[in-house]
Amino acid sequence: MTTSQQGLPIPPMKWDAWGDPARTTELSASQLSMVNDLLKVSAADVSAVAREDVRLRPSSLTDDDRAALEAVVGSAYLSTADADRLPRAGGKSTPDLLRRKSADEQDAPDAVVLPGTDEEVVALLNVCTEREIAIVPFGGGTSVVGGLDPVRGSFHAVISLDLRRFDQLEELDEVNQWAVLGAGLTGPAAEELLSAQGFELGHYPQSFRYATIGGFAATRSSGQDSAGYGRFDEMVRGLRIVTPRGVLEVGRPGPKNAAGPDLRQLFLGSEGLFGVITAVRLRVHPLPKAKAYEAWQFPDFATGASALRAAEQLGTGATVLRLSDEVETALNLATVADAGDQQQQGGCLSITVFEGEPELVAERHSATRAVMIAHGGTSLGADKAKQWEAHRYDGPYLRDPLLANGALVETLETVTSWSNAAALKQAVTETIQAKFAAYDSLSLVLCHISHVYDTGTALYFTVIGAQRGDAIAQWQDIKAAINDTLMSHGGSITHHHAVGADHRNWMTDEIGEIGVDILRAVKATLDPAGILNPGKLIP
Amino acid sequence: MTTSQQGLPIPPMKWDAWGDPARTTELSASQLSMVNDLLKVSAADVSAVAREDVRLRPSSLTDDDRAALEAVVGSAYLSTADADRLPRAGGKSTPDLLRRKSADEQDAPDAVVLPGTDEEVVALLNVCTEREIAIVPFGGGTSVVGGLDPVRGSFHAVISLDLRRFDQLEELDEVNQWAVLGAGLTGPAAEELLSAQGFELGHYPQSFRYATIGGFAATRSSGQDSAGYGRFDEMVRGLRIVTPRGVLEVGRPGPKNAAGPDLRQLFLGSEGLFGVITAVRLRVHPLPKAKAYEAWQFPDFATGASALRAAEQLGTGATVLRLSDEVETALNLATVADAGDQQQQGGCLSITVFEGEPELVAERHSATRAVMIAHGGTSLGADKAKQWEAHRYDGPYLRDPLLANGALVETLETVTSWSNAAALKQAVTETIQAKFAAYDSLSLVLCHISHVYDTGTALYFTVIGAQRGDAIAQWQDIKAAINDTLMSHGGSITHHHAVGADHRNWMTDEIGEIGVDILRAVKATLDPAGILNPGKLIP
Repeated sequence: MTTSQQGLPIPPMKWDAWGDPARTTELSASQLSMVNDLLKVSAADVSAVAREDVRLRPSSLTDDDRAALEAVVGSAYLSTADADRLPRAGGKSTPDLLRRKSADEQDAPDAVVLPGTDEEVVALLNVCTEREIAIVPFGGGTSVVGGLDPVRGSFHAVISLDLRRFDQLEELDEVNQWAVLGAGLTGPAAEELLSAQGFELGHYPQSFRYATIGGFAATRSSGQDSAGYGRFDEMVRGLRIVTPRGVLEVGRPGPKNAAGPDLRQLFLGSEGLFGVITAVRLRVHPLPKAKAYEAWQFPDFATGASALRAAEQLGTGATVLRLSDEVETALNLATVADAGDQQQQGGCLSITVFEGEPELVAERHSATRAVMIAHGGTSLGADKAKQWEAHRYDGPYLRDPLLANGALVETLETVTSWSNAAALKQAVTETIQAKFAAYDSLSLVLCHISHVYDTGTALYFTVIGAQRGDAIAQWQDIKAAINDTLMSHGGSITHHHAVGADHRNWMTDEIGEIGVDILRAVKATLDPAGILNPGKLIP
Repeated sequence: MTTSQQGLPIPPMKWDAWGDPARTTELSASQLSMVNDLLKVSAADVSAVAREDVRLRPSSLTDDDRAALEAVVGSAYLSTADADRLPRAGGKSTPDLLRRKSADEQDAPDAVVLPGTDEEVVALLNVCTEREIAIVPFGGGTSVVGGLDPVRGSFHAVISLDLRRFDQLEELDEVNQWAVLGAGLTGPAAEELLSAQGFELGHYPQSFRYATIGGFAATRSSGQDSAGYGRFDEMVRGLRIVTPRGVLEVGRPGPKNAAGPDLRQLFLGSEGLFGVITAVRLRVHPLPKAKAYEAWQFPDFATGASALRAAEQLGTGATVLRLSDEVETALNLATVADAGDQQQQGGCLSITVFEGEPELVAERHSATRAVMIAHGGTSLGADKAKQWEAHRYDGPYLRDPLLANGALVETLETVTSWSNAAALKQAVTETIQAKFAAYDSLSLVLCHISHVYDTGTALYFTVIGAQRGDAIAQWQDIKAAINDTLMSHGGSITHHHAVGADHRNWMTDEIGEIGVDILRAVKATLDPAGILNPGKLIP
């Protein structure tokens, strides 16, 4: 574990980019020249600040504040040092990364605290309520929607409440197939604890290596195996939440009941505004004994989407069901490994993976295969699917060299009905292209389906254009137009990235004024002072 | 459609008993003597009032109230006649039926109104808010938890808002496999509309023939095919709700998203307290092309439960998975047809049914079969399973002749983890037996599993003892002890019967004080005057 001079653990990602600090991703010469030629950009246009030159807004924590917080967690678990504040200054959206590169003064939380128990979180919430200090709960730091912006709201200071010490497997029940996991466990840490006892959670979002159990719950995360194991919210059986009103456990021992509204669903997706999630009871399954892979080629996106829809509606039981559109397939970005190289293949690449008991895997594979063939798919064998899996977490690494080279790169996602998917995809693509054109830039819009449902599908977009002038303002302008398009064309503002600060202004369109009032009423009940994550989720 | 003299449609069930007025269920001589001997009861001990002798509390609706309500729905859709009020005076719990038999004055709603549009419901809520009139939304009238009690709370009158005119299939989308169904459609009416176009909802609770789409949603109903098609709440993609604040639609076109808490889950199970559900968007599936049946015998309940658990956790895909305990099996009540007769078989009867595409049905059957055999099951072939299906809605009819004969009969249900199921079953059984013993009565406690989950299972109990004295008070006393046992032994207060008036006092135990405060805050936001279903759900 890396620690700062103050002895606090440091979040494990690069401070100004995605992922493992030990890993660098360079563009090949051909990739570089393609980007430069197409977008008319170059590394010379991009400025960046070295870490030692970053200027953070000075901490506004008073000595009395500090003493009160230290009295709860001890001095070893509180820091106001820049080395601890900077890695928690934001998430990993493109605007976040661009902000990190600024030579201007950067905002950051005024302190970092690492409580170790529910009781300490209770005490911290009390201190912050009394002393008027805002709190941003911090898990893996992977938010791409401004969920970690150090917003003070009406308060004089904001602290980052890092949950990393909630890192226990509290319970593993083999009969009921559930586990109680600490909110601060990262994806790999959780899977390591479970696999030592023969179990798996099976939640593999692109943020898997860094994001945490608590973050998955707070944001309604969805992983790449969602066809087989469900979204994260579907795995949750119970939650322990520390609210300013006290500790709340939601979810009785029974999985589902009819005792009124399902309150778990009010805290899933609550993004730290209603309380701090400290533990989650989750369905786990035995480690799969067998695994099968098959990649498919479809002549076009619509044909492939029909195949995925048929498989999902029939319930053929695939663990992974993906489909890249023509552009993503042509650029080999579906499997990342050969991104941008010339080994293009036509049509649309689809990936299927099957896991479980050997007989069930064979049946699921066979049933899915029959649907894919009946709907115009051509088998490409297992290799491409294995290649996709091997590189499934590599995509985000490509963004950083592109940003450094003057490109503006970001991802966004939505969800809609099956029948509306093509129209929504086209509307989003046209909006992006028109907005970049207004900035005198070509743009590439790549799309894939990575989460399917019986009645609809998610759409995941990757956008590449040119940075022009103030790239943060440029992207905010483009993204606002995209969000408006999502709202006017039957999409949701987000399928699995959550709301944060960035999507907040669209929540009234998403859930209506009455819906927003409901969230405000719950917020007022649980956090009357409003210290928890101001400026996020609720408009 | 049967109508009263006033021309209003009459709810299609017997006014003082379960089910079809044209159908009578008699006990055989052997059944009768078994009950009389065992419980020391006889029909002579039971009094009942003829319909024409029922005395209802006079309507407290003022002339001005009536005029204001009629101005909304028209005089053809409002009635204060006893013939219209009596069939909506309550639900079909045993206390409800015993109340109906009383020669004392019976309580009933002060009027019945049947709005035909959302706009009329909006106007009704406004009139009732202004005039301080409480509202009990009414669907099929099948509540067994006091959900239809005509509670006035602090108001001077209460009306029954019958949703029967919301009987449209508003939309059927074959691509997205969803349908928008009016809240007033009964189970059979909904399935008839869907099957005419080749689709099926697949929600078959015991109340299927009478209960409505809106009621299923408001109470988080669960049907006998829940293993295959899910609980009702899992089928819901969207809801239209008329609240005193206005019309609210929850659920975007996409099936699931990460745009904050899932507000659909706040209205599912809201039992009419937050608004009147007028339409529900539901996942539907093509009518199954194939069907397979197999009944099983297990040596004991624990062995059978292990088999069901293994099948569900593996995901072998059964549509129906049931298990009756030794007592229910011995009495042949599992299949109702031969109830109480002497063709007893040992052990525990389990029912499996498989539906869908022929190949998937074969695979699901084969995979489930393998699990059942590996866990100690002996196949009994298809007949018993078909017999169960043919009589799946007959169970409730048995209660009425038993009640008329002096027995006290009721059902109740809960849900818990797999590992806790045996202990909870035993604790509930012992509580029932001890409580009836205190009334100098033997008791029979039958139990089955009809809804299974990966991490737990529902338990459904049928209780038969003797009526002693004031049978309503007697049952309330016994039921309170059972509810306390559920709470102290890791059960939920209800798996699928809902909360209503009868379980309301246990909701603080169920969801905690903070949970109750959340519900109160939502209630205050949507229905500040508190006119909607007072005295239910929220303590």
